[in-house]
Amino acid sequence: MTIKLLENERLDDLGRKGYKIIQNPEKFCFGIDAVLLSGFAKIKDGANVLDLGTGTGIIPILLEAKTGAAQLTGLEIQEESADMARRSVAYNGLEDKISIVTGDIKEAGSLLGAASFDVITCNPPYMIGGHGLQNPSEAKMIARHEVLCTFEDIAREAAFLLKHGGTFYLVHRPFRLAEIITTLAAHKLEPKRIRFVHPYVDKEPNMVLIEARKGGNPRVTVEKPLIVYRDKGEYTDEIYDIYKPPVYDKREK
Amino acid sequence: MTIKLLENERLDDLGRKGYKIIQNPEKFCFGIDAVLLSGFAKIKDGANVLDLGTGTGIIPILLEAKTGAAQLTGLEIQEESADMARRSVAYNGLEDKISIVTGDIKEAGSLLGAASFDVITCNPPYMIGGHGLQNPSEAKMIARHEVLCTFEDIAREAAFLLKHGGTFYLVHRPFRLAEIITTLAAHKLEPKRIRFVHPYVDKEPNMVLIEARKGGNPRVTVEKPLIVYRDKGEYTDEIYDIYKPPVYDKREK
Repeated sequence: MTIKLLENERLDDLGRKGYKIIQNPEKFCFGIDAVLLSGFAKIKDGANVLDLGTGTGIIPILLEAKTGAAQLTGLEIQEESADMARRSVAYNGLEDKISIVTGDIKEAGSLLGAASFDVITCNPPYMIGGHGLQNPSEAKMIARHEVLCTFEDIAREAAFLLKHGGTFYLVHRPFRLAEIITTLAAHKLEPKRIRFVHPYVDKEPNMVLIEARKGGNPRVTVEKPLIVYRDKGEYTDEIYDIYKPPVYDKREK
Repeated sequence: MTIKLLENERLDDLGRKGYKIIQNPEKFCFGIDAVLLSGFAKIKDGANVLDLGTGTGIIPILLEAKTGAAQLTGLEIQEESADMARRSVAYNGLEDKISIVTGDIKEAGSLLGAASFDVITCNPPYMIGGHGLQNPSEAKMIARHEVLCTFEDIAREAAFLLKHGGTFYLVHRPFRLAEIITTLAAHKLEPKRIRFVHPYVDKEPNMVLIEARKGGNPRVTVEKPLIVYRDKGEYTDEIYDIYKPPVYDKREK
């Protein structure tokens, strides 16, 4: 199929079912975190899945390739990203499975309806608004910093949108772990699985993957560490398995 | 010095400053968790330290050997354990540094006074009351199960007893992590350092070490994994360093 690429856009191979994704390196390219989240999420066949803050649609497209989800929705506030996501969905012929909705996470509940989803995923902005380096590019800043929504907004809307017993998957930075857990618990999203991602086996984790269940009981499994690199900067077998990197392993987030 | 050992009691070498501890394997012997907690705790010279539920006094005795704490208090509800702790303190000539108080954690605040300590340590019962195998020996059951106090009781009393900016160190089971973090946060004990202890590098953690600060800000460091064994069931160098095992490495908890 032919595809219209705008200025600075490129088409990247996802290494799964021949799918490709449109990205603009001037704006924002997905990172390993989105890929690891799509590998961490356990999604039953027929599930109705929502991705909050979907950006260019990487998570719904990867989940469509990897799981038996029936329907996937990506919510994105930035029209330019949402448009790229829609064109990628169309390019891959997934219009019947994936819908991209332009909208604000803070209003996701009223937009999409209470108890509508079996699974919600989110790769949110990690940095607290006003902290860290403020990226001059607006698209990158919105993706990285809590400029337009806070983690409290995300947890509140996810809790409203999930069916009872539904699961919320997120990736975040370990330094916010305590706040994330207390915020999830305040919204009856009970952490059930936690996995830390370490660049090397003898280093602190730089990402954390969390599964929380709406209305779950307070008992959590902390899984074995997910190690990204072996000794010499080569991916571990587990990372190769989740993240068969064709083109996109050197892209920055 | 001569020491009176009661029936079934034995005197174990702690491998530090010649200190020994009286234990009764029919009742309860300390485990690697107490040793790892004493290695995890950072204690400034001159600090006033309290150990909640001190059992036979292993943590105050190890901390006296390893740190420059000025005063250490161990609170223990079981008179028989407290008596063993007092005799161990006397055997090691530490009566001026370590006091063993018989009393209930639930009343620790009124017993010992608000904002009295720089550091509090606790190796609490891990299992929720009524869950898990109920040990027929009362001493072991009280040490392992939340029969006489809950984690909520411990966090509440620790928060009351700590000075502002003081630190609370605990070891617990990872399956209770979410509940521990929310309970600590509810008492303004903000988690600042978390370290998971894994039996092997490719296994789930079976212990978690937590440092929380009274009145701290919500930002936590998750440290690199603490791995107990190498490939062949031999301790890693780091464990050898914390836990130079003379006699007590094969004792059950």
